[in-house]
Amino acid sequence: MLGRVRTAVAQLVGGPGPAPAAQPPRDSPAPPRVPPGPSACRGPPAGGGFSRPAFLQLGAEELRRAGDHAGRAVQSPRETRGRLPWSTGYAEVINAGKSQHNEDQACCEVVLVDRRCSPRCNPAPKGCTGEAEGGRGGLCFHYWGLFDGHAGSGAAVMASKLLHLHISDQLRDLVDILQDSSPPPLCLPSDSRVLPAERNRAPLAEADAELPNDALPRFHLEKAVSCESLVIGAIENAFKRMDEQIEREQTTRLVAGGCCVLAVVYLLGKVYVANAGDSRAIIIRNGEIIPMSREFTPETERQRLQVLGFLRPELLGNEFTHLEFPRRIQHKELGKKMLYRDQNMNGWAYKRIEEDDLKFPLIYGEGKKARVMATIGVTRGLGDHDLKVYNSNIYIKPFLSCVPEVRVYDLTQYEHCPDDVLVLATDGLWDVTSDREVADVVTEVLMGYEPNDPCRYTMAACGLVVRSRGALKERGWRLADDKLGSGDDISVFVIPLDGPGNYTR
Amino acid sequence: MLGRVRTAVAQLVGGPGPAPAAQPPRDSPAPPRVPPGPSACRGPPAGGGFSRPAFLQLGAEELRRAGDHAGRAVQSPRETRGRLPWSTGYAEVINAGKSQHNEDQACCEVVLVDRRCSPRCNPAPKGCTGEAEGGRGGLCFHYWGLFDGHAGSGAAVMASKLLHLHISDQLRDLVDILQDSSPPPLCLPSDSRVLPAERNRAPLAEADAELPNDALPRFHLEKAVSCESLVIGAIENAFKRMDEQIEREQTTRLVAGGCCVLAVVYLLGKVYVANAGDSRAIIIRNGEIIPMSREFTPETERQRLQVLGFLRPELLGNEFTHLEFPRRIQHKELGKKMLYRDQNMNGWAYKRIEEDDLKFPLIYGEGKKARVMATIGVTRGLGDHDLKVYNSNIYIKPFLSCVPEVRVYDLTQYEHCPDDVLVLATDGLWDVTSDREVADVVTEVLMGYEPNDPCRYTMAACGLVVRSRGALKERGWRLADDKLGSGDDISVFVIPLDGPGNYTR
Repeated sequence: MLGRVRTAVAQLVGGPGPAPAAQPPRDSPAPPRVPPGPSACRGPPAGGGFSRPAFLQLGAEELRRAGDHAGRAVQSPRETRGRLPWSTGYAEVINAGKSQHNEDQACCEVVLVDRRCSPRCNPAPKGCTGEAEGGRGGLCFHYWGLFDGHAGSGAAVMASKLLHLHISDQLRDLVDILQDSSPPPLCLPSDSRVLPAERNRAPLAEADAELPNDALPRFHLEKAVSCESLVIGAIENAFKRMDEQIEREQTTRLVAGGCCVLAVVYLLGKVYVANAGDSRAIIIRNGEIIPMSREFTPETERQRLQVLGFLRPELLGNEFTHLEFPRRIQHKELGKKMLYRDQNMNGWAYKRIEEDDLKFPLIYGEGKKARVMATIGVTRGLGDHDLKVYNSNIYIKPFLSCVPEVRVYDLTQYEHCPDDVLVLATDGLWDVTSDREVADVVTEVLMGYEPNDPCRYTMAACGLVVRSRGALKERGWRLADDKLGSGDDISVFVIPLDGPGNYTR
Repeated sequence: MLGRVRTAVAQLVGGPGPAPAAQPPRDSPAPPRVPPGPSACRGPPAGGGFSRPAFLQLGAEELRRAGDHAGRAVQSPRETRGRLPWSTGYAEVINAGKSQHNEDQACCEVVLVDRRCSPRCNPAPKGCTGEAEGGRGGLCFHYWGLFDGHAGSGAAVMASKLLHLHISDQLRDLVDILQDSSPPPLCLPSDSRVLPAERNRAPLAEADAELPNDALPRFHLEKAVSCESLVIGAIENAFKRMDEQIEREQTTRLVAGGCCVLAVVYLLGKVYVANAGDSRAIIIRNGEIIPMSREFTPETERQRLQVLGFLRPELLGNEFTHLEFPRRIQHKELGKKMLYRDQNMNGWAYKRIEEDDLKFPLIYGEGKKARVMATIGVTRGLGDHDLKVYNSNIYIKPFLSCVPEVRVYDLTQYEHCPDDVLVLATDGLWDVTSDREVADVVTEVLMGYEPNDPCRYTMAACGLVVRSRGALKERGWRLADDKLGSGDDISVFVIPLDGPGNYTR
């Protein structure tokens, strides 16, 4: 039912050399296509010891410079090499030395979704070649993705090349449904295609339903499901399929580490912001800040993790306790009373310390130092299938979720001016720059350019990166107020929200 | 460590006759006391076939009238019989016939908390008699509770008589800590008492901690815990202890059904609103509405329940599936594709229908008709330990939570005028009256009385009940706009927020 994506991606995630074009789902007759146009997203990325986003089109020398931890030159797309869709602005900078390569990755694409070919549809005629079928065309979505890798860049690189194809694959069953004005059918025939004539049939009568237990009360209910929630489901499942593919690759090839993902899909007038990790998205509209994501960390997901540790104690490997304590307990404190929180509590209470409480807490530390089983500081994302607690056989992955939270913003509900933007950035930016400061920098930079100057969004993205990186002084990278700048990789998209009507701007 | 409450409460929850005074925790030398003063909450409730809140002080004839489903007379405290603390307003009305008795219960108390006596503190001197110890007094909290029973009134009656004593018991360890201006100690000596001299000692050095696994990184962290979060923890644990007590009683005596609980604690300047169920609390301040609770239903807690069904499938008894479908599936639809949501999804997607999907969904129905395993429409509360799926051996209780969500409102942060109130009501009110309508009714009624007239809050409560019950017309109970009135039990507290400075008003 669900398309599988080819596993021949060794070059994508392996060593040097140009990456191949992204691989389409295995059982799809027509590969997802990138339409011709101003998109600068295509083309093979430059080779080298590591990979930067294809749309930057960096040459060998540029790539070397982008990887220089001392200079930390800000990278952004060159106007002369074509423009990103909607004149999207982008900028990035490498970390100050915390990892060898820039482990952030980015992707910006326009993707055409062909309807899935029915199993009965053989031999494959023109309807299976990506052409419009039955007189109706496919679906087109715009896509932006930020991938913040950790413990290696393999998962981030792979996801940056393939996640949008998984989204496309999940949408293929929905091409007709989403373009129809009537509500989605609750049930589809077994060949998975919906022909327009089938759409308005009466719901199946339930009176003759064969209930597994006749004693149960019979409900005659139908829940209304919106097209919007179908797109959300498609994005959620695409993340799961992407994660499964990374797992398959990790068994045979080196796909190192994991990555947080912040992905945006623009489809049929709505912006879907999907977040799994600690990147962040905000909309700045008329100077007002609208949060479009929340972060998933050991602190924000404490209870989800504790519930799992409580219900499946074997996952804690006899080394960890699902209880939270405000500090480590010493053996000599046995019998005393210590503050704790269990999986059901938001408050704290005292409990008498028992032998079991001396185990290391499943969640420990505060803020950026909070960790799951003393190992990882984010609780959602892709990859990390082989991640274990140091010097143990305890896997972290069961506690991590690959499912994003998806928020929806209806672009058609508001009039947007050229200064209204969606900002996506990895945590390297948000660690040192608040939402309000981001909005102020964006507004200030945009004011310096004509509203119809397409380079203004790239300049805003560069402004944000420079502000968060700071300047190199005697005592390291410093912000204007002399506070420590971000030593992390930083990647930023600035997406104008009046874009849909201005593709060619 | 945790106080157990005496189990001799048969009369409380059993048949007719006056209920005894509430029982104190078993191992507490000094019973929680109600201070002398204007409180009308004390005294035994009137006897009869069922029980109404003690503070109503209903006589036999009044009790009969309160139980009349045809007349549905609104009940409220009589001014002549003493006033509730803070001049709190209260009103209630029985249902239109959906159950024999009014299954709502209410409680309003002022409770004095004595510090717990240390085990070393023997023989019990004056410090264990409820007198102030070491020159410092106990703690006093104000308390309001609404209990919406279902499947019998036993659990609601029992909780209405005892929950505040469990809260008091949980707070006994905290008497000194909460009155001290320094942050709570993370660890207490084993006798559980904190003497003032111990409070400001340096945190225990962790360098010499005996780690269970030396390979784990050592953190030198201490989490700050606020007094507020200790009170939240105390309330959460009080709900758990109350639920355990109901369970113990249910094994030996008839404590029928379960109940939703909405409880408010005012302590040291802050209002703690604890909700477990589908009652609701809002603050109306200067005409603005501030939600102080959210409802816990199969729909709002879908993912929590689905996660449990997924991780512990044996709880579903081979009759239910943890997946959600928008309607029942027929056997003949096997092999087709149906919309579904699993425990991780917020969106919907299609899946091919398999044999297992024909089971009844764990969560089914919409709005007020949504049910857990086709049985119960609320997912938090007390009791229900013996509740099973009809004609089966499948217990519902594992899916229900007795833990409330506690929200805090700092009374000292705002100047309150006499029209600023906290409204608590059972779902019988909110089913037909919106937050805005409640605010409008309250404002309108209060305007009809002098600001210093103490009966105005009772009149506001009565106004809310009358508005939501409607008037008896030819086609049943109807609201002013001829829509159907609430046929449920309705109970309302209207609590003025400038109360703390006006105890005697």
